Amino acid sequence: MIKNDLYLKALKGETVERPPVWMMRQAGRYLPEFIKLRDQYDFFTRCQTPELAAEITVQPIRRFPLDAAILFSDILVVPQAMGIDFKMKESVGPWLDNPIRTMEQVKAIETPDVNDTLGYVFDAIELTLQKLDNEIPLIGFAGSPWTLLCYCVEGKGSKSFDIAKSFCFQQPEAAHLLLQKITDTTIAYLNRKIEKGVSAVQIFDSWGGMLSPEDYQEFSWRYIQQIVDALAAFAPVVVFGKGCWFALEEMSKAKISALGVDWTITPELARKLTQNKVTLQGNFDPARLHSDPATIKKMVTEMINRFGKDRYIANLGHGILPNIPIENAAAFIQAVVDWKPTH
Amino acid sequence: MIKNDLYLKALKGETVERPPVWMMRQAGRYLPEFIKLRDQYDFFTRCQTPELAAEITVQPIRRFPLDAAILFSDILVVPQAMGIDFKMKESVGPWLDNPIRTMEQVKAIETPDVNDTLGYVFDAIELTLQKLDNEIPLIGFAGSPWTLLCYCVEGKGSKSFDIAKSFCFQQPEAAHLLLQKITDTTIAYLNRKIEKGVSAVQIFDSWGGMLSPEDYQEFSWRYIQQIVDALAAFAPVVVFGKGCWFALEEMSKAKISALGVDWTITPELARKLTQNKVTLQGNFDPARLHSDPATIKKMVTEMINRFGKDRYIANLGHGILPNIPIENAAAFIQAVVDWKPTH
Repeated sequence: MIKNDLYLKALKGETVERPPVWMMRQAGRYLPEFIKLRDQYDFFTRCQTPELAAEITVQPIRRFPLDAAILFSDILVVPQAMGIDFKMKESVGPWLDNPIRTMEQVKAIETPDVNDTLGYVFDAIELTLQKLDNEIPLIGFAGSPWTLLCYCVEGKGSKSFDIAKSFCFQQPEAAHLLLQKITDTTIAYLNRKIEKGVSAVQIFDSWGGMLSPEDYQEFSWRYIQQIVDALAAFAPVVVFGKGCWFALEEMSKAKISALGVDWTITPELARKLTQNKVTLQGNFDPARLHSDPATIKKMVTEMINRFGKDRYIANLGHGILPNIPIENAAAFIQAVVDWKPTH
Repeated sequence: MIKNDLYLKALKGETVERPPVWMMRQAGRYLPEFIKLRDQYDFFTRCQTPELAAEITVQPIRRFPLDAAILFSDILVVPQAMGIDFKMKESVGPWLDNPIRTMEQVKAIETPDVNDTLGYVFDAIELTLQKLDNEIPLIGFAGSPWTLLCYCVEGKGSKSFDIAKSFCFQQPEAAHLLLQKITDTTIAYLNRKIEKGVSAVQIFDSWGGMLSPEDYQEFSWRYIQQIVDALAAFAPVVVFGKGCWFALEEMSKAKISALGVDWTITPELARKLTQNKVTLQGNFDPARLHSDPATIKKMVTEMINRFGKDRYIANLGHGILPNIPIENAAAFIQAVVDWKPTH
């Protein structure tokens, strides 16, 4: 049904002529047409207005030969649906007036009906699918329960999320109750996204790498695994854990279709830790898009040669930086599209 | 000469009854007697006044049975000595009005005579050694050239040091010239510290983990290696690279006496990557000091059992957090002091 099925083939581990390419945060940030909408509408208005979210989703598709689109949205729409009132503060980022710090607060949180609270996301999927017209697949996403807990407890972004971690270590029961409520909501949310027609879902564990291997198992992975187990029968699930190199071996044994990796791991080690058996996605250093286009092309070609063309999705190792020149982003994508086997 | 030589024995790989213990950032932050001085004198006044630096260095030694002292100072005193005018801004941290962003700026930077510019550090060492009275060894330290470049180019702290990285990727010649100037100054600085009587030196590569393995070799490790090669004949050198798990194998082959590791790596893997042949230091998650004292004792005991008592220095995996209760810090230290072999 979908004309360019390179991304879906890579998720299934099928042989491809070249790897598919998309870029984390490809929808926005560095594009002038996005910046125009950003100056007109505030952050959550863009997320909550299906027409805007759909438009932003397809903006990079009009410019570049990308092999997948990712719905424009934010991981914080899930806690918002749970009644946790996140704002986006200018030059601060996510902000909670009353961060979650006690068992009483956790107990008061509802597990909402996602159709009532997140209908705007499902409407955005419908509009986006019309615009994409079956040309390329659409990816849906959610934050990992641990990463969402980080924001809910810290109340804002952080270098090391020490308040969130301390909350888990001082009040583990409250932490686990919150993580379970987020997990249940996320499963319902992603299930509905799949019903609405996304071709795959990706879970972003942006702050898993702040935890020790043991604490990662306890506070992050066991909840991601619940989500994977609940969804794997219905759509391919991709898990990206930034800084979670230490858990790659364990993660590769789950019912995932692909694992995202960041740029601190070599392709060879990532393949070794995942026993050469799962599709990997990544892992170009986003700051390396500040190199000149010729250097980018050379580095991308080498990255593909090292990961191998099959069971591989070319991507950045984290989100694109807002100040990347468009021609550099284009060079990254084009280098994948132009890739040829060397022998 | 030094009565408690447990730390020095561990650096030499000698057999010990229990591992030595000290804590990164043990001088200050969480101690009321430190906070009193902090409220009286600004940050760099405390660094630049030998009497204050010496007093802060020994404050934790009066309270706890620590096996080493580390001189109270800051990694930014080296760029300050090079004429790069760092300030400490309230609730912001390190701050440069004019960050280094061009080759012209780099060329204008002098490699100073450390005796003229950093005499206050050497005077602080002299006063501290008098106060320590040969009871325990004193550690001197410096930032890695890469970590110092991060602050010089970014101009402030950052989650990902994208400006610093982009500077290296866009202007590699300027980056390498700056790194070499910092390296030369650091070698002279640490050499003089050793002459003044510190028993070992530690290099902090706090931001090495922001780089890919290849970029780490180019922009960080090759300069750390110059420092290690220049100093190893005169004193034990310890290297701590936060997030630098990917380079541990390579690092273990250098003329270092110990490697610091953070809490994202298991003791078993750290031992394996360093071929069981170097002393390791770490790696308790600083946020885990928010657990109750009984849990801390249990976790510390397990950490020692997993690393093994020999060729091991018990420490945190990064600096202590300012809001740690004193009894929890005490529980960490006491658990090491009380450690007994299980069989």
